Amino acid sequence: MSRPPRAGMALPTGPRLDRRQGQVELAHGAGGRATAQLIAQLFWPALDNPWLRAGDDAAALPLPPPEAAELVMATDGHVVAPAEFPGGDLGRLAVYGTVNDVAMMGAEPLYLSAAFILEEGTPLALLQRLVRSMGEAARQVGVPVVCGDTKVVERGKGDGVFIATTGVGWRAAGVRVGGAQARSGDAVLLSGPLGDHGAALLAHRAGLELQPPLHSDSAPLHTLVRALRQAVPPAALHVLRDPTRGGLAGALHEIAQASGVGFELQEAAIPVRPPVQAVCELLGFDPLHLPCEGRLLAVVAPSAAEAALAALRAHPQGEGAACIGRVTDDALRLVQLRTRLGGRRVVDWLSGEPLPRIC
Amino acid sequence: MSRPPRAGMALPTGPRLDRRQGQVELAHGAGGRATAQLIAQLFWPALDNPWLRAGDDAAALPLPPPEAAELVMATDGHVVAPAEFPGGDLGRLAVYGTVNDVAMMGAEPLYLSAAFILEEGTPLALLQRLVRSMGEAARQVGVPVVCGDTKVVERGKGDGVFIATTGVGWRAAGVRVGGAQARSGDAVLLSGPLGDHGAALLAHRAGLELQPPLHSDSAPLHTLVRALRQAVPPAALHVLRDPTRGGLAGALHEIAQASGVGFELQEAAIPVRPPVQAVCELLGFDPLHLPCEGRLLAVVAPSAAEAALAALRAHPQGEGAACIGRVTDDALRLVQLRTRLGGRRVVDWLSGEPLPRIC
Repeated sequence: MSRPPRAGMALPTGPRLDRRQGQVELAHGAGGRATAQLIAQLFWPALDNPWLRAGDDAAALPLPPPEAAELVMATDGHVVAPAEFPGGDLGRLAVYGTVNDVAMMGAEPLYLSAAFILEEGTPLALLQRLVRSMGEAARQVGVPVVCGDTKVVERGKGDGVFIATTGVGWRAAGVRVGGAQARSGDAVLLSGPLGDHGAALLAHRAGLELQPPLHSDSAPLHTLVRALRQAVPPAALHVLRDPTRGGLAGALHEIAQASGVGFELQEAAIPVRPPVQAVCELLGFDPLHLPCEGRLLAVVAPSAAEAALAALRAHPQGEGAACIGRVTDDALRLVQLRTRLGGRRVVDWLSGEPLPRIC
Repeated sequence: MSRPPRAGMALPTGPRLDRRQGQVELAHGAGGRATAQLIAQLFWPALDNPWLRAGDDAAALPLPPPEAAELVMATDGHVVAPAEFPGGDLGRLAVYGTVNDVAMMGAEPLYLSAAFILEEGTPLALLQRLVRSMGEAARQVGVPVVCGDTKVVERGKGDGVFIATTGVGWRAAGVRVGGAQARSGDAVLLSGPLGDHGAALLAHRAGLELQPPLHSDSAPLHTLVRALRQAVPPAALHVLRDPTRGGLAGALHEIAQASGVGFELQEAAIPVRPPVQAVCELLGFDPLHLPCEGRLLAVVAPSAAEAALAALRAHPQGEGAACIGRVTDDALRLVQLRTRLGGRRVVDWLSGEPLPRIC
C-alpha cells in the first residue's frame, strides 16, 4: 500500500515573490533559491497535493486499481497563442488535452505531470492565472498534477508560457480501442458540433466581434468515454479520438491510415453551429479542419451504434451527438463526403500551415 | 496480459522530407500531412517501438511487474543551449535526465514520453541528430519512448529544439527514498567528481580550449541505484539525488529544507577534477553550484555507509565515489563546509542567474 508522502519542504527564506508586478527571471529556472520560491509560492498553492509538496524530482504514487490490465500514457506540448482566449486558457487546455488523450484509449486517467518552459519577462500574474486555472481543471477532473519542472529561457527564445503535460491512466481487460481498430461498416459518431475551439480562437485573433460571442469547446471527455464504455461491449468500441489539431479530417485520415480503411461522411449529418460556419466563410477555413478541444469522435461496430449514440446523447456533453458517416472498405484510404446536394468530394488532410499555435 | 499493438499507421502519401537541407516548417506542427510525414519519416525510425508506431495519441502498455508497490513519475523540460556539446546533446540528456529522476526515488524506469517544441526554421538535420541520439540513449537504458507530441512555434518564439520528457517507473515495497528522509548522523556519499557537465558546457560556450578537453558527465544512473539497493537494506537508503541545476549545494539545500536537517561537508573529501577547478577559477564559479548530469548523491544510514560506498565503488560509474560529509541536527538547516585549512563556511544556494539553459 502506498501512502501520500508527508509534506516536507518548507518555504525557503528570502523575499516573497511579487505576483502582481513581478516577472519571470532567468533565476527562476536556475535551480537556486528563486526556483524554490517560485515553486513554493506560486505552483504549490495552485496545484496543491501531497506528492507535489514532497518536493522531490519525482512522485511515488499508488498503483492503478486491481481491475487494471494496462497502463496508458499520453503527452502533449501546449503552445496555444494567445494563452487566454474566450472559453479557456493554456492551463486548462493542458489538463483537458492530456486527460482526453488518455481517455481516447478507453482508459481512466490517474495522474498528470507538467513541464513549464517560461520566457524571461513573462508577467508572474499571467503565470499565476494559468497555473491556478490548471489547478482548478485538475481538481474538476480528479486527476492531480503530481510532479513538475520549470525551465526559463531568455527573452526572445520562447513565447510566454509553454506547458508540456503527460498523463498516466489505466484500462481494463478487453478494451482494445485504438486507431488501427476501425472496420468496414463501422458507424462514425461525433459527440457535438464541430470546430468551436478553432473558430473561437481564430475570431479572437482576428478581432471579430460576434453576437453571441464564440467560446472554445474545451472540456474533459473522460466521463463521456466512461458512459460509452458502460453502454456497449468492450469489443464494439473500435476507435476514439478527440479531433484537435487537423480537425475531424485529420483524425479520420490518421484512422484511415492506421486501419487501412476509408470513410464516407454525410455532410448534412455533421453538426456545425452557424457562428462557426460564419467564421469559416469569413476567414476561408473548412470546419472539417478546425480543431475541437471537447468533442469525441467514436468509431463503433454497427451492432452497437444505436446504444452508443443513445449513451452519448444521455450525457450532458453529448446532447448534440450524431452519427455522421461510416467506415468503408477502401484500398486508397480516402475520406469522402456526400454533400448536401448529393455530390461527393474527397476531404484532404489540412495542408500548409493555416492554423499554427491552436492548442 | 498486454501485447504490443500491431504497427498500423502507414506512410502518408506525399513528398519525402528533405532531412539534409530541409527545415522545420509551421506545417510540421499543424496536424496535417506534413506532421504525419515528420512523425513517420523522422521520429519513428529513430525511436522505433510498437507503441509509438501504433500512431495513437496515447500508448497502452504492460503494467509494472507484480513486485511493484508504487508507480513513480517524473518530468523534465530540456532547453540546454547549445543543443550539442562535448560529451552529449539535448536528445541524450532528455532521456538520461528523466530516467535519473525516476531512479532517484529508488525506482526502476519503465517508459518515457517526449513532447517536442520546435522553432520554425530549425534544420531537420539537427532535429534528426538529436532524435537519433535520443533513440540510442533509450535503447541503451532499455526504456522506450512510447508516445510523443510535436508542436512548432514561429521563428523567434522558440529556440531550435525543446524536449519535455516524462518517465514512468515502479518501486518495490519498503523503499522509502525521498527528500524528507534524511536523519541526523546519516552519511553523505557522492558517486564521482563534481561539475563536469556544467564546466564542459561553460568552457564550450566561452570557447575555452582545454587540454585534455572537458566532457559532460551525462549518463544514466539507474544501474548504479540498483547496485545500491542490492547492497543495503531498503530502510537504510534515505535520499538519492542527481545534483543537476543548482549543483550539489542546491540538492543539499532542498534536502535540508524537506528533512529539517543541516549538512556538514568535508571540502577535502569532495572530488573535483583539476580542469573543472580551473574552469571555475577562470569563470568565477563554485564547483558546488555546477550541475552534474551523471552523478549520484546518496544519504544513507550510518550503519549502511560502508556497504553503500563499497557498492558504488564496485560499479563502473562509481569508481570515484567518496563519503563527503554527514547530516547534522540543525534547526537553521544550514549547509556547512569544513575547509581544507580547517575553517568552516556556510554554503549558500546558487543565487542570481549565472547558469541559464544548462540542462
